[in-house]
Amino acid sequence: MVSPSPLRIVALLFPDVTQLDLTGPAQVFSRLPDTEVHLAWHDTRPVVTDCGWSIVPTTTLADCPQADVLFVPGGKGAFDLFDDKVALDFLRRQAAGASWVTSVCTGSFTLAAAGLLTGRRATSHWSALPMLAELGAIPTSERVVIDGNRITGAGVTSGIDFALVLAARIFGDDVAKRVQLRLEYDPAPPFDAGSPATADPELVAATIGRVDEARLQAVRRAAARLGESAR
Amino acid sequence: MVSPSPLRIVALLFPDVTQLDLTGPAQVFSRLPDTEVHLAWHDTRPVVTDCGWSIVPTTTLADCPQADVLFVPGGKGAFDLFDDKVALDFLRRQAAGASWVTSVCTGSFTLAAAGLLTGRRATSHWSALPMLAELGAIPTSERVVIDGNRITGAGVTSGIDFALVLAARIFGDDVAKRVQLRLEYDPAPPFDAGSPATADPELVAATIGRVDEARLQAVRRAAARLGESAR
Repeated sequence: MVSPSPLRIVALLFPDVTQLDLTGPAQVFSRLPDTEVHLAWHDTRPVVTDCGWSIVPTTTLADCPQADVLFVPGGKGAFDLFDDKVALDFLRRQAAGASWVTSVCTGSFTLAAAGLLTGRRATSHWSALPMLAELGAIPTSERVVIDGNRITGAGVTSGIDFALVLAARIFGDDVAKRVQLRLEYDPAPPFDAGSPATADPELVAATIGRVDEARLQAVRRAAARLGESAR
Repeated sequence: MVSPSPLRIVALLFPDVTQLDLTGPAQVFSRLPDTEVHLAWHDTRPVVTDCGWSIVPTTTLADCPQADVLFVPGGKGAFDLFDDKVALDFLRRQAAGASWVTSVCTGSFTLAAAGLLTGRRATSHWSALPMLAELGAIPTSERVVIDGNRITGAGVTSGIDFALVLAARIFGDDVAKRVQLRLEYDPAPPFDAGSPATADPELVAATIGRVDEARLQAVRRAAARLGESAR
């Protein structure tokens, strides 16, 4: 239970990130003792999230310090990163020196496209999860999945659960519980519709229908490149 | 179940806002049909949140369109707004024309300081809730409290529950359930420590100890001003 001091958390920030994928964990991180959070992107101009407004990166991919925890949120933009060699190289370089390599939601696809989940059990948004196999990961339908130093969270809101699990691993259960209490994380969803196991099957089918062919093709192209670079 | 088109949601953005208070609801709002979210502050320069990084306002207090839903997140900065006459006037003006007047966490203190929760049942972060009586509201220990067109959410993470309740009121249960499924909001906290009812009593006492005397005095000064303006 010894943590580096300060603990450096590096999150990749990118256009069309799902805002809550980032902020759920970041809010937990903000309440941890002696912890720095860096938001890294190509440059430090404001980046538009999927909520339609902008967050300002705190550093660049070139200048970012080495992470103790590398974290990749998801969102539509996570798939655009497949073609961004500089961002994927950044993830590989950071991952090599990080104690933990992590993601939430479809951020696991970006990690996998960088070759960082090959042969690892990992999760993602439930509607995209089966596709993760195309990139060499082992799709695992759990809220938070730990395989070695890889920790992945499922869709969007799972980022809060993920971050508390991570906090407990690094700082111990008492610190994680204190953060949970301060964030009043005693959830009371008004409906039981948050998982494909409990939601109306028609609703589930309609949501799966949103994972379109173009996205599958992007994943397959990324998988082909990953195969080439491994040869 | 008729909603205005587009539905205009106006969130007050301010320095030291608790980031998740804003983003939990904003993420739900971002998945609603025909909905605009505006982030309003004095000017459109980036505003530093309690996570240490910045969000860019989309409009100013002067230029902001009339809200259908007025929303105030909480955080340390919510108490600094007590002395900000322009911001409180903005809230009063917007509230007069809004269908719903809402807050999460200590945002209810800002609404109350503007005189917008007088005589209303309302909630807030559990550790601050009793103080809400000083500002004329009726502290109500529930996750989401509805009193007329006022809806308040409890601490931080309750914003997600609050926003789903609001979405159901405006768009109907089916739309809210669809958003819940897309955000995979099927929470699985690793500990049962998110409420003072379940957390370790020592942890609860330590967290209450953080609500300091200075904050209570600020609330009392705001209450005195509210009393004067009501005379």
